[in-house]
Amino acid sequence: MQTVSSVLDSISDVGRDATRGGYSRGVYTGAELSLREWFAAEAQARGLSVETDRNGILWAWWDATDSRDGALVTGSHLDSVPGGGAFDGPLGVASALVAVDLLRERGVQPNRSLAVTVFPEEEGSRFGVSCLGSRLLTGTLDPDAVRSLTDTDGTTFAEAARAAGVDPAHLGRDEEAIRHIGDFVELHVEQGRGLIDLDSAVAVGSTMLGHGRWRLSVTGQGNHAGTTLMADRADPMVAAAQVVLAARRIAAEQDGARATVGRLQPVPGGTNVIASRVDLWLDVRHEEDAVTAALIERIHGQAQKICAFEGCRATLTEESRSTTVHFDGALQRTLGNALGRSFPGAPTLPTGAGHDAGILGSIAPTAMLFVRNPTGISHSPEEFVERDDADAGATALADVLEDLL
Amino acid sequence: MQTVSSVLDSISDVGRDATRGGYSRGVYTGAELSLREWFAAEAQARGLSVETDRNGILWAWWDATDSRDGALVTGSHLDSVPGGGAFDGPLGVASALVAVDLLRERGVQPNRSLAVTVFPEEEGSRFGVSCLGSRLLTGTLDPDAVRSLTDTDGTTFAEAARAAGVDPAHLGRDEEAIRHIGDFVELHVEQGRGLIDLDSAVAVGSTMLGHGRWRLSVTGQGNHAGTTLMADRADPMVAAAQVVLAARRIAAEQDGARATVGRLQPVPGGTNVIASRVDLWLDVRHEEDAVTAALIERIHGQAQKICAFEGCRATLTEESRSTTVHFDGALQRTLGNALGRSFPGAPTLPTGAGHDAGILGSIAPTAMLFVRNPTGISHSPEEFVERDDADAGATALADVLEDLL
Repeated sequence: MQTVSSVLDSISDVGRDATRGGYSRGVYTGAELSLREWFAAEAQARGLSVETDRNGILWAWWDATDSRDGALVTGSHLDSVPGGGAFDGPLGVASALVAVDLLRERGVQPNRSLAVTVFPEEEGSRFGVSCLGSRLLTGTLDPDAVRSLTDTDGTTFAEAARAAGVDPAHLGRDEEAIRHIGDFVELHVEQGRGLIDLDSAVAVGSTMLGHGRWRLSVTGQGNHAGTTLMADRADPMVAAAQVVLAARRIAAEQDGARATVGRLQPVPGGTNVIASRVDLWLDVRHEEDAVTAALIERIHGQAQKICAFEGCRATLTEESRSTTVHFDGALQRTLGNALGRSFPGAPTLPTGAGHDAGILGSIAPTAMLFVRNPTGISHSPEEFVERDDADAGATALADVLEDLL
Repeated sequence: MQTVSSVLDSISDVGRDATRGGYSRGVYTGAELSLREWFAAEAQARGLSVETDRNGILWAWWDATDSRDGALVTGSHLDSVPGGGAFDGPLGVASALVAVDLLRERGVQPNRSLAVTVFPEEEGSRFGVSCLGSRLLTGTLDPDAVRSLTDTDGTTFAEAARAAGVDPAHLGRDEEAIRHIGDFVELHVEQGRGLIDLDSAVAVGSTMLGHGRWRLSVTGQGNHAGTTLMADRADPMVAAAQVVLAARRIAAEQDGARATVGRLQPVPGGTNVIASRVDLWLDVRHEEDAVTAALIERIHGQAQKICAFEGCRATLTEESRSTTVHFDGALQRTLGNALGRSFPGAPTLPTGAGHDAGILGSIAPTAMLFVRNPTGISHSPEEFVERDDADAGATALADVLEDLL
């Protein structure tokens, strides 16, 4: 039987990013499509029947009964942030495949069907909306709006989906898929230091921090960097820099809040050119959704003041929004009991990251398992999981699935 | 006979930038290569013989005598900043071609040969070093360093040159070309408001502001935007934002100084990712070269302090440097006298922009003519030249060349 690490080793060359380090596996790019093919082959090798649904979600079915309705579903994603780590997403997919092996080795006879799923664009790194696949499935996104989302090259989501063999005409709320999901369990690498501090390989998820993404476009007057006097400028980079600092200050003043500008793009972006526009993306999170809303309102207000002073204009556009999710209490207890066999005393942990399990919570009981990350760093090449911890995660997932099947 | 505008109209579709607006004609990209072919065809149609020298500079020769040594040379560039205007560069090239037409129409019999030149990478927008072609010709750049310059896609200058048919093995100081340049005159669109205020279509250049370009790499700790508490961050974007503001403040405090950050690139650049590194480019200019040096030293010092406070590191790399150029006094007077015929009272103006004419001043007498830009804006789609002013510029250039031939 394969270990989780040996499964992951087989994709360790796919989508490496020579410039940023780590992996860049944007949804429906060559790298992510290779991973989808790899997943289908791995699932088929295990006798699972693989299907792609109308929203581009991959389903690998272990049809244990006549019906797929109310099945037990587990999985994660294969897309990455630019220059991301090897585990964020793929660990959950590889662990699900190994858990199927373990269940069979244990001779488990399921009382319901089991599916392993791969969700597209969990990171939202290519088209800006995180958990895009699960949001489409649950019907919380307008398919027309999704079809016209563009990546930085100007390719629309519709074009990218079509090129990947997914007909964009059929995107949207999927009643069949919703019927199929009885319970959903996602295993994921931990993206903080919780399990390091608690000295445990695995944990059960409790809550998922609410968050939102906004694009702020700051427009000024593009001009020549040499001929334009400092006093004659309306430089949107100078205004954007003040917005970056205002966002940090406003978040730091609010207990438990996070605000980040990780992406910023001057237009046109020449060394000897005063930018005409700077686009920056705000990622804001807080456990209380009302606080998240108040934070972005304060940042927006500050941006307006800064821009007025600098002779610029600021336009804020919401790209996505997720409320704080409290994972299903009963399912959490089931997971805790299952983990008690191999991992007595396994802790319960909240997460500051977003996951498809949070989105699917609106249509079915969902739960998460976290696996220790010895660096505590994620969305970076430094993200890591020890081989033993990865196998512990697959065992924990198999224990959980066994109790739920 | 063609007007300057009709010559420019024939390239008005080449290299349009649908995203930024205006034109993106990076050196040795498809757009710039099209323009080079167009130039060769226009020159050949005028009976000029076209050659490419070892540094990729195009020469279109009117061989009026047996020798090319000490020839009169005029020209400009065809590459643009990203999202630039239609005139910065091409106006000088088109005006030179029309000036040749005018000289022939006038029946001028030259006493020396005349060449129209096109310099590659004047803007430095693709490989970071402005006036790259003229700097190679005069021998002020190390050819090895130039060969290994990379663009944002990781393509080296050597690869780009080879693909454009220029053998990178032969880059460097070109004694033959240096011998050929007896005098150099460059016509250029004005990049400020001088001629608007003076109500004149053309001016003679007096000085060219010294300037330098530096890349500042700010390194921090990449991490997840949701799971990393504000207090636990070493966010290079927050440090970079403070550097942008410090550069503005330091330049504003110094009379006549300009400091600009028009290009800034977070790595990896994901919305939900705290950047691990932010690269930003500083363009700093002042008439006194010692002041430019002091300005960048102050900005660097501030960057070090900011980064130390934010838990980041800053590394400064000089990309290019030009001293303030006072154009040749005798040549300026010759230009002034020549302009006196058609444009009595034409003013003399300094420029804050950099030009190949400034670089070539180290090997021959050089001079510039500026043509009015009614918006006063450059390095932007809003840059403009009226048709009548463009023709006035060609007439002025022909007058100057006639007196110098």
